[in-house]
Amino acid sequence: MNSTVQIIKNHRSIRNYLEKDIPEDVLQTVLEAAHAMPTSINGQQVSLVVVRDKDTRLNLARLCGGQPWVAKAAVFVLFVADFYKTSLAADLNKVKQVIHESAEGELVGFLDCGIAMGGMIIAAESLGLGIVPIGGIRKEAQSVIDLLGLPKYTFPVNGLCIGYPADLSQQKPRLPLATFIHYEKYQRSNLVEDIKAYDKQMVSYLEQINRSEEVNWSKNTSSVYQSVYFTNVITTLKDQGFTHKK
Amino acid sequence: MNSTVQIIKNHRSIRNYLEKDIPEDVLQTVLEAAHAMPTSINGQQVSLVVVRDKDTRLNLARLCGGQPWVAKAAVFVLFVADFYKTSLAADLNKVKQVIHESAEGELVGFLDCGIAMGGMIIAAESLGLGIVPIGGIRKEAQSVIDLLGLPKYTFPVNGLCIGYPADLSQQKPRLPLATFIHYEKYQRSNLVEDIKAYDKQMVSYLEQINRSEEVNWSKNTSSVYQSVYFTNVITTLKDQGFTHKK
Repeated sequence: MNSTVQIIKNHRSIRNYLEKDIPEDVLQTVLEAAHAMPTSINGQQVSLVVVRDKDTRLNLARLCGGQPWVAKAAVFVLFVADFYKTSLAADLNKVKQVIHESAEGELVGFLDCGIAMGGMIIAAESLGLGIVPIGGIRKEAQSVIDLLGLPKYTFPVNGLCIGYPADLSQQKPRLPLATFIHYEKYQRSNLVEDIKAYDKQMVSYLEQINRSEEVNWSKNTSSVYQSVYFTNVITTLKDQGFTHKK
Repeated sequence: MNSTVQIIKNHRSIRNYLEKDIPEDVLQTVLEAAHAMPTSINGQQVSLVVVRDKDTRLNLARLCGGQPWVAKAAVFVLFVADFYKTSLAADLNKVKQVIHESAEGELVGFLDCGIAMGGMIIAAESLGLGIVPIGGIRKEAQSVIDLLGLPKYTFPVNGLCIGYPADLSQQKPRLPLATFIHYEKYQRSNLVEDIKAYDKQMVSYLEQINRSEEVNWSKNTSSVYQSVYFTNVITTLKDQGFTHKK
């Protein structure tokens, strides 16, 4: 196990940050790490909006459903699925872009943002920074689009808070590896038992970190997933040109 | 710049592999790196199917539209958006899962697969392995589902070939950083000029690697994106329960 693998396996979300700026060259390195990650057909349908302005971040913290770390971290980075740049490429070549109207295009935009974010997370952590991804950026997606001036054929996929950690939170246990890694074929046989075992482990973990009022994994996840918690996503996708028709 | 950042910035796709197995412990490390990456609401809606069987990989190589490296690399890893495990959690708690019927759920599945893949790519490269992502896995998604026994509420998002590189391909230039990193707000003003400059750079690059029959970035991308190249994605999503209705 080398230092890169150690960094990856040591990942945890950080929501408490020091009041300490990120030096320009360190931030630049972190941003360039995302730029180095691969994209589907080399389409490069990802853009970042890097927000340091405090007022904008206070606004974003509110739009994300009240997440104060969005304003308290040194930097907030928005990951944008970006078929606007590719549409300019189409204009230059006098052809009509249709990919943004398809399930494939929409999904590739999100997938590639994820791959890029993976690179940024690991680069940041390797430089002593802490991060937490902010899916809440999709809650009021239209307001985020307006606030940050996103053009048509783009969508705010995910955010990332980055800053120097005030304390290292404990690493949350994950579902057993056997539920995650399937050899040769998807293996269903032990999933329920493994989930039950993990539920018990989560209860112990929550007691240990003095958050025993919270519930186990299956209860928490199923409680969230019995409703569509961000109801505007589908409308805003359509308004941005992602019609999911083809 | 530390060694982790160097690895990330040194990324390139590898399609030529040595006939050399990956030791079990190395492979395990690479797979566990993906497991350590964050997921939305800690829902852990990602699974991997690790394929070493040669016949299965020959089949997959064909289903991906003829990509021989799928069979030639030491290992092929399928990244699965997995709301089946969360549906078992819902069953355990006697609630009805609806998230997979929403745009939000579908997109989070793809996003989280991307984040996990980012971790696996960097871990693999840090261990001297080469990789290439295989979006072609979505071309005949239903056949992949059948071949690898994927349950309802899952979808084959992306594949990853992993093996020891036979040669290090050259690193492909990217669109200028100014088109990728936007400060405070999305900046549209110089995008077209930057794309034109990149198109010229790509032509030089293609000449240099003796592939001057290929076309520049805007021509290539707009040519692909004027049609929906994987036409089955939307139907297979629906058949798997991803109805994109909410």
